[in-house]
Amino acid sequence: MPDTVKHVGTPAESQLSLLPLLTLDCIILGFHEDQLRVLLLRWKGTQEWSLPGGPVRKDESVDAAAHRILKERTGLDQIFLQQFHVFGDVKRYEREEIREKLKHVVDPEKWYERAVSIGYYALVDYSKVTPMPDAFTEECQWWDIQEIPPLLFDHNHMIDAALRALRMQLSWQPIGYNLLPDQFTMPELQRLYEMILGRTLDPRNFQRKILALGIVDRLEARRKGGAHKAPYLYQFNKARYEALLTEGNLSFS
Amino acid sequence: MPDTVKHVGTPAESQLSLLPLLTLDCIILGFHEDQLRVLLLRWKGTQEWSLPGGPVRKDESVDAAAHRILKERTGLDQIFLQQFHVFGDVKRYEREEIREKLKHVVDPEKWYERAVSIGYYALVDYSKVTPMPDAFTEECQWWDIQEIPPLLFDHNHMIDAALRALRMQLSWQPIGYNLLPDQFTMPELQRLYEMILGRTLDPRNFQRKILALGIVDRLEARRKGGAHKAPYLYQFNKARYEALLTEGNLSFS
Repeated sequence: MPDTVKHVGTPAESQLSLLPLLTLDCIILGFHEDQLRVLLLRWKGTQEWSLPGGPVRKDESVDAAAHRILKERTGLDQIFLQQFHVFGDVKRYEREEIREKLKHVVDPEKWYERAVSIGYYALVDYSKVTPMPDAFTEECQWWDIQEIPPLLFDHNHMIDAALRALRMQLSWQPIGYNLLPDQFTMPELQRLYEMILGRTLDPRNFQRKILALGIVDRLEARRKGGAHKAPYLYQFNKARYEALLTEGNLSFS
Repeated sequence: MPDTVKHVGTPAESQLSLLPLLTLDCIILGFHEDQLRVLLLRWKGTQEWSLPGGPVRKDESVDAAAHRILKERTGLDQIFLQQFHVFGDVKRYEREEIREKLKHVVDPEKWYERAVSIGYYALVDYSKVTPMPDAFTEECQWWDIQEIPPLLFDHNHMIDAALRALRMQLSWQPIGYNLLPDQFTMPELQRLYEMILGRTLDPRNFQRKILALGIVDRLEARRKGGAHKAPYLYQFNKARYEALLTEGNLSFS
């Protein structure tokens, strides 16, 4: 339920229990088959997509609301998530356009004139997510970050802002740790960072840097299958990884 | 006007023009005599201090509200400011304690049960600021960051969070550029970064690194006065500085 509509579909008594004119929107990121992906919702009876989101209840913290919404959309309890920006412009999108596009889902009279939205990004293990639509939508699906369609509201802008924040926080947040499965290959790790940085990296420099940082341990087992020589598998050395993050020294660029 | 009180002192008709239950709080930082300082307000007839803050009007963006509040408190029009965190816990502080402490300034009945606050930090040229109290306060003054008294609300926590955000953004934001006067010495620049990082840096390594980055130009003039040999003056090379920030490569640590 993105943006200004979240108070609409709920009965009057539960509207009273929501913080007014304040909403969350969540950029839920996963990494699969060398692609960074984001979870989007399709509104009932339309081809219109948006980010997941929703209101904050009066008896829950803003962070708890984000965790609740993420659990509802992904089925996951423990998710790494991070506030990254408040979208607080007076006119964040063309309201009349939204009212028209969604008139069969939401009574156009019920849209607020303005709401402030707190943007969160979440990093999830793609393989563990069970995408689930909400009361206004009928499909919840992963989209490659490079193939995002034009979204409702200001949600394309929000995704751009989330990626910019991720890039800035690459040295400080356990990004690889949360997006990759327990075991991964060096090319997979490199590809993840290339997707976030938006540019290619030299494989030999990347591998040398990662190994010098000491944040991964090489496993005995190799990745099975595939035509080439089986690549080594790695896992994060969590203690070392977190120590570097604390200092802000985990620079991959 | 920090936190939940900001709708209190305004007439009923103008309360209607404010976003409900949403406030801003501003950590305004300056650098003077080798100290990082923060601007605090003392409430009328009390010895209670807090951060500057206030509500958002329905017809202004959240960022515009922050600029307005900053201008009211500092007299400055062009300020570098940055959202850094939303403080959204259900119970951010002991309400009864606040009601009691400020009962001669604000009718205790008029406090909200809950408000969400958006935290901004602002970086200003200390010498250009004219501190001004607001309607609830009678003193607006700089405090050394290491000598902050116990503040009202959750404002000590907010300052800690702002400094943590600054540290994380040291490679990405024009922090020195906004906090230092046009011309400065190398020890002044070093001291600023030591204050933000919370640790001492080796002077020779620091100077070598700064010069290698090419972000400062040495001037012909030297700093006058003082018992020692007059130190060189520098100014930022803005083009080079901004190019490095764009890449996130301005690491001083």
